[in-house]
Amino acid sequence: MSGTNDFNLSKGRLESFSDGVFAIAITLLILEVHLPPFRAPISGARQLSDLMTIWPQYLVYFVTFATIGIMWLNQHALLKNVERITHGVALANLLLLSLVAFLPFATEVLGRYGITSIAIVYYGLTMTLISIAYNVVYWQVVVAHPHCKNGMTLWGVVGFTAYPLVSLVGYFVPIVGLAGMGVLALFYMQPRNVRAVMLDV
Amino acid sequence: MSGTNDFNLSKGRLESFSDGVFAIAITLLILEVHLPPFRAPISGARQLSDLMTIWPQYLVYFVTFATIGIMWLNQHALLKNVERITHGVALANLLLLSLVAFLPFATEVLGRYGITSIAIVYYGLTMTLISIAYNVVYWQVVVAHPHCKNGMTLWGVVGFTAYPLVSLVGYFVPIVGLAGMGVLALFYMQPRNVRAVMLDV
Amino acid sequence: MSGTNDFNLSKGRLESFSDGVFAIAITLLILEVHLPPFRAPISGARQLSDLMTIWPQYLVYFVTFATIGIMWLNQHALLKNVERITHGVALANLLLLSLVAFLPFATEVLGRYGITSIAIVYYGLTMTLISIAYNVVYWQVVVAHPHCKNGMTLWGVVGFTAYPLVSLVGYFVPIVGLAGMGVLALFYMQPRNVRAVMLDV
Amino acid sequence: MSGTNDFNLSKGRLESFSDGVFAIAITLLILEVHLPPFRAPISGARQLSDLMTIWPQYLVYFVTFATIGIMWLNQHALLKNVERITHGVALANLLLLSLVAFLPFATEVLGRYGITSIAIVYYGLTMTLISIAYNVVYWQVVVAHPHCKNGMTLWGVVGFTAYPLVSLVGYFVPIVGLAGMGVLALFYMQPRNVRAVMLDV
Repeated sequence: MSGTNDFNLSKGRLESFSDGVFAIAITLLILEVHLPPFRAPISGARQLSDLMTIWPQYLVYFVTFATIGIMWLNQHALLKNVERITHGVALANLLLLSLVAFLPFATEVLGRYGITSIAIVYYGLTMTLISIAYNVVYWQVVVAHPHCKNGMTLWGVVGFTAYPLVSLVGYFVPIVGLAGMGVLALFYMQPRNVRAVMLDV
Repeated sequence: MSGTNDFNLSKGRLESFSDGVFAIAITLLILEVHLPPFRAPISGARQLSDLMTIWPQYLVYFVTFATIGIMWLNQHALLKNVERITHGVALANLLLLSLVAFLPFATEVLGRYGITSIAIVYYGLTMTLISIAYNVVYWQVVVAHPHCKNGMTLWGVVGFTAYPLVSLVGYFVPIVGLAGMGVLALFYMQPRNVRAVMLDV
Repeated sequence: MSGTNDFNLSKGRLESFSDGVFAIAITLLILEVHLPPFRAPISGARQLSDLMTIWPQYLVYFVTFATIGIMWLNQHALLKNVERITHGVALANLLLLSLVAFLPFATEVLGRYGITSIAIVYYGLTMTLISIAYNVVYWQVVVAHPHCKNGMTLWGVVGFTAYPLVSLVGYFVPIVGLAGMGVLALFYMQPRNVRAVMLDV
Repeated sequence: MSGTNDFNLSKGRLESFSDGVFAIAITLLILEVHLPPFRAPISGARQLSDLMTIWPQYLVYFVTFATIGIMWLNQHALLKNVERITHGVALANLLLLSLVAFLPFATEVLGRYGITSIAIVYYGLTMTLISIAYNVVYWQVVVAHPHCKNGMTLWGVVGFTAYPLVSLVGYFVPIVGLAGMGVLALFYMQPRNVRAVMLDV
């Protein structure tokens, strides 16, 4: 009646809305892959070389797609055993979504500037903020389910430290920084790492 | 058989369609964040300054994202206890969605013109129309559930008066107007204000 | 085992996919509302006049939004009492969606050329094709449910004749043609017209 | 407890997320249909000829729309009788989605370069990769359901051989290659071919 818990968003709608934002953000990424400007008509050889010179954009596309996909898997694992969506979880989830939906812009920065120091740090900073927001969601879930046994997720610990570190490396050697983001995505893909975020509530 | 009530849209599909439009409109916002035009290649210092000079666009992005997110939460709360989706509710909801889906354009106006008097009033006018449409949905729900006890939602009363007022302030001091919209979003985030729109049907 | 009926798409996924395409097509419309090009900074008076001179784009936006919304309501009504989604219904529905998803382009044609004879006829032709595709879906539903009692929907009869007629009028007086499309959307909004397409299967 | 099978994504969310990506990718295609640049105002005759000279873009739009639609039907058929979504299926499905979401770019390449040798091969290569990813999903489903009786899907066998072959033909006669992709989409539309991918698990 009077507690904050009587605002309970239906879990189905939170998931449906989140699935929508994740699915749209991930699909919008392709809009940031751009061909170099040209004056038509151009020769087949030039077409081929243009399609190959934009390889960094392909790399960024697949790394970001993988990262958003993995986040979606993790958000699923986090909410899997949760029954009540409190107001705090709903707001923290909105914060997470606002940063995930920001990724197409961070991707555009990389596409426009190329894999430069500033662009990689900007991209890595966005990832760091996402990792923080993810932990806020986690924390809100734990607040609503105090008997939950995990203290901190692997994602949380790794994300907090790994993304700033990889960004720092990327400032000096941008391509190594981007590769590091790819390795982090592969790391989070391991089933044991996804299982680590599942709460026993 | 002959009443208008035998047109009852399945609530599941209304919610799924609405979730889709909310999720897409909220995710399209990022497409309105634009880098300044430039001639490549540009120095790292110039990249950094370009990424910082567009701070008003970041502000607009997060204020609008929060506002759409809060509207989605409120629409959920409004429909939570409603069983029958009448034709009137379906049409009023379409009107609401058409204005929510208009927000990326109002955001683009702010991004293109900057935080100017005209752009802020245009944005605030859109918010005012959304607030009116939200009340039309509320009114249609009440018409279909006459025993509902709340007479008017807090959202309705506040929105009707606050958005035009904030727009007026924004005409004279644009940045204060935008800050006011942010404060309104924070106000609507309070769980007690979301609870205020939940109908007891 | 060997009949075509053992391909039965789950109705839930057909609806969820259709809801997605409808929701995205309707939300993409706003991307076709464009400000006139300008050299920044421009005066407040010029901003205001620019925002007002694009009124035909607002009109087109709301007419198209209403039309897609109504189609979505009608598709819902059509499938409401249908149990089995046959392969024929699935393919006919894809055809319908491919034309609905084409509408943002027809809208862009109106936005780019203005409300001219050619642009209105192009838009009206798209509407006519949508109306035909809608009837193909209807026909596929009836094929799978032969005991269905309605012979032809009002939407079908009206759409077949009204959209080409309104397009013809629009060729000579474009703005009247566009108004006609708006009137048709209002016509389809009547609950009795939506009920007319509900099958009693 | 300790096996990889205790990571089981809810099938509902996998389908809802996949439906989202399919629906968005298919609806974004229209953004790649472009009018030729022009200097306003242009005559009605010029408008008409511009709308007709872009016929290859219409063709590409409908072929790609049909192909994505068919893939969606096939993915549905593949998962229809599957109960458990393992981690392997979830990751393979992400790979498939990342390539489906790539199609709007391959479509843009065709739109920008025209139906040229390089553009058709690029498009055909994307289709080949999608066909490979589809088989990876199939293989992951079979791994999780070893008693499944089908050894290989028709889609798999045909896709592996037909798309590279059609791409090769397209290198020499681009328009024939595109027609071949259309024929392949029609082939996959046959209900018996969709049924062939349904697993009896």
